[in-house]
Amino acid sequence: MTPDARRVRIVLAYDGTAYAGWQIQPDLPTVQGVVRDALTRIQGGGTVKVRGAGRTDAGVHATAQVADAEVRSRLDDDDLRHALRRILPDDVRPRAIRTVAPSFHSQYLARSKTYVYRIDRDRDGDPFLARFTAHVPHELDLEAMNDALSRLPGTRDWSGFAGAACDKDDRIRTLTEATMSEPAPGVLSLRFSANGFLTHMVRNLVGTLLEVGTGRFEPARVDTVLERRDRTLGGAVAPARGLCLSRVRYDGFDDPEPGPWPFGGG
Amino acid sequence: MTPDARRVRIVLAYDGTAYAGWQIQPDLPTVQGVVRDALTRIQGGGTVKVRGAGRTDAGVHATAQVADAEVRSRLDDDDLRHALRRILPDDVRPRAIRTVAPSFHSQYLARSKTYVYRIDRDRDGDPFLARFTAHVPHELDLEAMNDALSRLPGTRDWSGFAGAACDKDDRIRTLTEATMSEPAPGVLSLRFSANGFLTHMVRNLVGTLLEVGTGRFEPARVDTVLERRDRTLGGAVAPARGLCLSRVRYDGFDDPEPGPWPFGGG
Repeated sequence: MTPDARRVRIVLAYDGTAYAGWQIQPDLPTVQGVVRDALTRIQGGGTVKVRGAGRTDAGVHATAQVADAEVRSRLDDDDLRHALRRILPDDVRPRAIRTVAPSFHSQYLARSKTYVYRIDRDRDGDPFLARFTAHVPHELDLEAMNDALSRLPGTRDWSGFAGAACDKDDRIRTLTEATMSEPAPGVLSLRFSANGFLTHMVRNLVGTLLEVGTGRFEPARVDTVLERRDRTLGGAVAPARGLCLSRVRYDGFDDPEPGPWPFGGG
Repeated sequence: MTPDARRVRIVLAYDGTAYAGWQIQPDLPTVQGVVRDALTRIQGGGTVKVRGAGRTDAGVHATAQVADAEVRSRLDDDDLRHALRRILPDDVRPRAIRTVAPSFHSQYLARSKTYVYRIDRDRDGDPFLARFTAHVPHELDLEAMNDALSRLPGTRDWSGFAGAACDKDDRIRTLTEATMSEPAPGVLSLRFSANGFLTHMVRNLVGTLLEVGTGRFEPARVDTVLERRDRTLGGAVAPARGLCLSRVRYDGFDDPEPGPWPFGGG
């Protein structure tokens, strides 16, 4: 007898270096694709559909992406996690699995997301951080960067920081957190939380903040970019490898806090 | 006019994942090979010979390997480092360069070396630590492991922990440090210092210590392996990816302390 279908919510961590991003694309390795294939194999036929909270770009990492899928399997949640752990490649790891209401939707029900962008300030570039940071060996004016960061939170139209590929009409989002810390000597960590992000928004923000750090832009430049909604006034998009989706919040779910630096929430 | 030859001492950090080890081998990527090629290119002809303090195995990392080479170049030490930084791949980084006496020899003059072996105890395996740790999700008896570690320091014949490939006749070495720490939650770091190490010695020690941790061996097993000089009594060789050469000490050189966890001396 075929087991009943149920919806499961999966928290995933991944090193995105080898992937063309979260979203399935033909003939390219994607995180959504390997998770779909693993669940399909566990189900034993009939392709499983996987949804994710955030469409991370090619090369972007996650410590706590949230996905959901309807699966038919006799395995309980714990055994399902074991099976996924065995089948998924080493660079994609299931952190938690739990059966949820059929109405759960990892994208639509997400209340807020947190992205962390990490910068390696080491003179030569630390070879062990190269996959997970952008290397910025220049002098940076952290006070000016903090000034610019403090101007960002609020409910605004973020068109000025949206990438050209952004297909959203409504570009108003509420940014609740824009902070900077130094989780380890020589490492800068920029942290952004919002009820939603536009395509390339964090990387465009970071690119502009780095221009503030090097002195090419005044901190008030971020206001100008926002007011004029003109992407060309900002800095270049920062490299994907520094970016990590580190938290997705939902009502009624209390996911464990991500771990410490280097790969948790710091 | 050709510039005079001088000997330089280079401190190197590398992610060894992509390399068949330090030592040059035909048709395989090696760290010694990429450093040689980079210095040869800087010199502008005439192959540069590079010597290293330790022959790290395939997949083994270093935060402070020490090398030396005789080069002919008009660049001062600082510019030489800049040139190396530009030419070397991202996973091999020059940390320091300094002109030394012609008699300097990175291998023969090394007084002691420190290797760190890192273990990821995370249930699922942290995808961000996968390149730099061995994944050991089993329960480990840390007290028993510490007992076994405390039995190791001293001047002894280490044949029982030498790999079959070891070609040294004199297998007496003085181990001055064998300690364990937890530099981050869920990460174990085993640290070994000695005036020299035999082939696979650290990885064989770790393999045996892990068997002590899981309870298959008593802590006193390390004494038995040492006394009987019998490799087959120890545990399996631990994976290369957890191992990192983290310090080489010389008289008259005071290299900067390696950084904190995850990729320094912890």
